[in-house]
Amino acid sequence: MIYIFDGAMGTMLQNAGLPPGYCPELWNQEQPAVITAIHKSYIDSGSDIIETNTFGANRIKLTHYGLEEKVALLNTAAVQAARAACGPDTKIAGSVGPTGKLIVPLGDLSFDDAYNVFFEQISALDQAGVDMILIETIIDIQEMRAALLAAKAASKKPVICQMSFGADERTVTGTDPITATIILEAMGADIIGVNCSLGPAQLLPIVEKIAQTTNCPISVQANAGMPSLINKQTVFPMQPEEMGLWAKKLVAAGARYVGGCCGTTPQHIKSIYQAVKHLALSDLPTVQSAKKSTALTSRSKTIYLGAGHPTVIIGERINPTGRKQLAADIAAGQFISVKKEALSQVRAGAHLLDVNMGVPGIDQAKAMQYAIQELSMLVDVPLVIDTTDVNALEAGLKAYPGRALINSVSAEPERLKSFLPLAKKYGAAILCLPISPAGVPKTAQDRLVVIQEIIHKAFETGLKPGDFVLDALILTAAADARAGLEALATLKLYRQHLGYPTTMGLSNISFGLPRRDIINATFCAMALDAGLDAPILNPYDPLMQQTLAASALLLGDDPSGRSYSVNYAPTSQSEERAAPLTPKNI
Amino acid sequence: MIYIFDGAMGTMLQNAGLPPGYCPELWNQEQPAVITAIHKSYIDSGSDIIETNTFGANRIKLTHYGLEEKVALLNTAAVQAARAACGPDTKIAGSVGPTGKLIVPLGDLSFDDAYNVFFEQISALDQAGVDMILIETIIDIQEMRAALLAAKAASKKPVICQMSFGADERTVTGTDPITATIILEAMGADIIGVNCSLGPAQLLPIVEKIAQTTNCPISVQANAGMPSLINKQTVFPMQPEEMGLWAKKLVAAGARYVGGCCGTTPQHIKSIYQAVKHLALSDLPTVQSAKKSTALTSRSKTIYLGAGHPTVIIGERINPTGRKQLAADIAAGQFISVKKEALSQVRAGAHLLDVNMGVPGIDQAKAMQYAIQELSMLVDVPLVIDTTDVNALEAGLKAYPGRALINSVSAEPERLKSFLPLAKKYGAAILCLPISPAGVPKTAQDRLVVIQEIIHKAFETGLKPGDFVLDALILTAAADARAGLEALATLKLYRQHLGYPTTMGLSNISFGLPRRDIINATFCAMALDAGLDAPILNPYDPLMQQTLAASALLLGDDPSGRSYSVNYAPTSQSEERAAPLTPKNI
Ligand SMILES: [Zn+2]
Ligand SMILES: [Zn+2]
Ligand SMILES: [Zn+2]
Repeated sequence: MIYIFDGAMGTMLQNAGLPPGYCPELWNQEQPAVITAIHKSYIDSGSDIIETNTFGANRIKLTHYGLEEKVALLNTAAVQAARAACGPDTKIAGSVGPTGKLIVPLGDLSFDDAYNVFFEQISALDQAGVDMILIETIIDIQEMRAALLAAKAASKKPVICQMSFGADERTVTGTDPITATIILEAMGADIIGVNCSLGPAQLLPIVEKIAQTTNCPISVQANAGMPSLINKQTVFPMQPEEMGLWAKKLVAAGARYVGGCCGTTPQHIKSIYQAVKHLALSDLPTVQSAKKSTALTSRSKTIYLGAGHPTVIIGERINPTGRKQLAADIAAGQFISVKKEALSQVRAGAHLLDVNMGVPGIDQAKAMQYAIQELSMLVDVPLVIDTTDVNALEAGLKAYPGRALINSVSAEPERLKSFLPLAKKYGAAILCLPISPAGVPKTAQDRLVVIQEIIHKAFETGLKPGDFVLDALILTAAADARAGLEALATLKLYRQHLGYPTTMGLSNISFGLPRRDIINATFCAMALDAGLDAPILNPYDPLMQQTLAASALLLGDDPSGRSYSVNYAPTSQSEERAAPLTPKNI
Repeated sequence: MIYIFDGAMGTMLQNAGLPPGYCPELWNQEQPAVITAIHKSYIDSGSDIIETNTFGANRIKLTHYGLEEKVALLNTAAVQAARAACGPDTKIAGSVGPTGKLIVPLGDLSFDDAYNVFFEQISALDQAGVDMILIETIIDIQEMRAALLAAKAASKKPVICQMSFGADERTVTGTDPITATIILEAMGADIIGVNCSLGPAQLLPIVEKIAQTTNCPISVQANAGMPSLINKQTVFPMQPEEMGLWAKKLVAAGARYVGGCCGTTPQHIKSIYQAVKHLALSDLPTVQSAKKSTALTSRSKTIYLGAGHPTVIIGERINPTGRKQLAADIAAGQFISVKKEALSQVRAGAHLLDVNMGVPGIDQAKAMQYAIQELSMLVDVPLVIDTTDVNALEAGLKAYPGRALINSVSAEPERLKSFLPLAKKYGAAILCLPISPAGVPKTAQDRLVVIQEIIHKAFETGLKPGDFVLDALILTAAADARAGLEALATLKLYRQHLGYPTTMGLSNISFGLPRRDIINATFCAMALDAGLDAPILNPYDPLMQQTLAASALLLGDDPSGRSYSVNYAPTSQSEERAAPLTPKNI
């Protein structure tokens, strides 16, 4: 079934006489019949779902008009005006637009303040009886995250999340459609989509990218083409008939909810309705099945872990354990050394960065929040929040404008109880560590049992395939001759029985032995073939870098050895290029 | 069932009046009744099997008495004299003793001459109607090999091979019981045993070693204790009763054929008969089942390949392909560089040496024979005969006083037809290469099919589990992105479906790429975990040596990393020790 949204409200209000500079939402109270009439004209054109006139009805926007005390009133009036237009099958979507402010650290609005503003508006819409919440035209993923969290807290209705992208297919603050989709699906968005800023021709490839990323239903509301300025007037040039033709393509690309944004009229909606409302869905391409690979994102980049994807390197260096200077810097609130480690690990090839603020005696939550905020501006690789402190975990997850990995969730009841709901709420993936209250299981088989228990609890908490990274657990070879064998056997059992992506902290294996680099690199090669997807390692180690480059070649991720040959070509210039970057040579 | 052999013949003949320095075998013709009477006294004491008076009845020994033309006559007369003593169930073993000369290169008797001498005597014994051939008191494995080959060619009767060991559990020319047993079983000995030189107390641990090595029936004929010189007379001190007590222990250790050698009399045999003839075998320890590991030996050392055994390094350096100087040396009959490569590879840690004489235009058979002869004196690691020339193969196998590995047997019909019978005849193991007339199979599954065909043909030729080493076949990664993956998958399939030990020539993978050492070492680590038992590699490569040391640690072959820690301990002295030896620093 294809659902037809409505079109623009703003231009319709101007045509109905809304004075320039006047608060559009105030008419919900003052001119409800006008609002109802506009809704009616869309319903008559074929809209299944109409959007309330509440795009700017949040406390921050209303403050511009001195109407900050009317949030509940204007949202409630909007829903009433909409309901007055509805036929028996018409649904009402409560429109929620941006605050117009950027969240810390890009702007000065705190995440909690943004959340509260959205919570207030969405509560009013929910209580007034909307059928769904439509968060739309959002250009910053962090704002969308705050709004989505608020929507999930304020309402049990379905939530539609629509971002707006530029012609470069990124939002103003740098997020691409795939990354946004991964973040929003993980946080529980019910419908994911895109609206405004572009016409249907430009939105088509974005819809395709969303469709290849998620099995959520997809919504799209394009402008009536790309606007031109004619006589100082913004003009949207696309005619209704053409809009209908594009609607067919958008549906073929995966959209199931189709409407219009700026410049669209009831005529455009009628054309869309006629073009797609009665399309037979069986003729359309089917959605993909669920994958077991796990996607992590920063604000602007997605990294996939798992079979079929290249090896992902998790840099282990942002960790004060055993490093006195780094610990002292963090305790002093001095994050220069943390930032240096981040930059140099990324330059040395890390695809993800582990962030551990475990300095005894400090406010870990504060340190974690600050580290995550700063690092998310500095580097574009996704972050791994490495903590045993539940407050530090939530501070980090809240601050992170992406989909983080939580390091780690063991089968200890306290950990399961506190960490799993946070993973679900913030849409994070979890690194599952096979440690139970009974201790560290020695054999691969016992580790599989503990991991299955963690996954079972995670499913009960609402996590899904795609949310897991499994740690095979490395003990030290010097203390246990079977440490290597059992870790390798564990990787193979995970691959065979579960199929989720895997990780290990490689350097544990060599603890207490000389030339740890040789052992770590050799073990890495074995583990990569045994099914290791994302080793946690020191990316400055030249032997490890050599092993990783050769492994990519050997495991089919570097056809004809092209990358390898460039890195290790026998010229002095290339030899220099092959040397990994360390803090010394930044 | 326990079978009772007889005891000494020589002392019995002296007691019967044989003059000192007189040829004992001449009495077969001159005094057959005395011979028959001695046999009769043993049969009356319980012997199931009597040994003909032909211990020295070979052409070389008889030449000392000017009796070289009486080989057939004296052997035939001996069998007749024995038969005259036999009851209906008594069996006759045709005794074959040593020539008294050493074979080239330890002595000046050629292998072929030794073979012919044994063939002549054994043919006579066979035609005269013995029930089995007993090759006994042999102190040189190469002489035993010649005698066994001759026995198999001259007779279809069962062949018993009995070596004689010193108090150090080695033969005069250095072979230990395990090594001898492996060589002889592979060459088709029907019963394997030990006689003379030592008393039962000293032979007991040797019988135990033979029993743990083979499922062949085991024979033992001890002297009557360790001799003392009393009044210039050799006296064997052990009394019959004690001999019987020891016989029980020898049977418990695995012997099923028990008799006596020097100093034993019919009284000793009677005591042995009473002690063991009616032992219930169900009370004795059972023999082990067939193993899938493969044992290779030099003259003096055994190396096991396969699961449960440490990684075996096959040194690849004795190969003139692409090495102009080495090729020129071999062509010139100048083997100094070959010997240097052998010594330095062994010092660098090679457990087996591949020997390839593939220089175009030379007499490869001659070169191979010479190389094998020289190397078998120089180093104690088993050799791998690497050739496509069937004449070179046979020359090498004949010259080698051990159990060699043949590199290689493909599924090409000509290769199967010519190489498999030579492997069977000389008791060599075969390196199976999955190449068929249709070419090189690309996938692991196809390689498994071809390997199964080779093994099937090998079984038809009489080879057994324990005779195989499977090559997983490495293509070059630069030409084929799946080269590494398929080789690893092949190793895993071999392990899963066949279980025989595996090998690969590692360096193929990196052909045409820079820094081949990194790729080779990384691939080695992966392959060892995937089931590679015996990599073929360059043992001088320091990166490879590091990887091998770390792999042993990681795969449980170096508990607590003791060897690793010694090799890589952070002191300058140890660092030097860790450096592999290359030809430069010999
Ligand atoms: Zn718009
Ligand atoms: Zn809109
Ligand atoms: Zn003897």
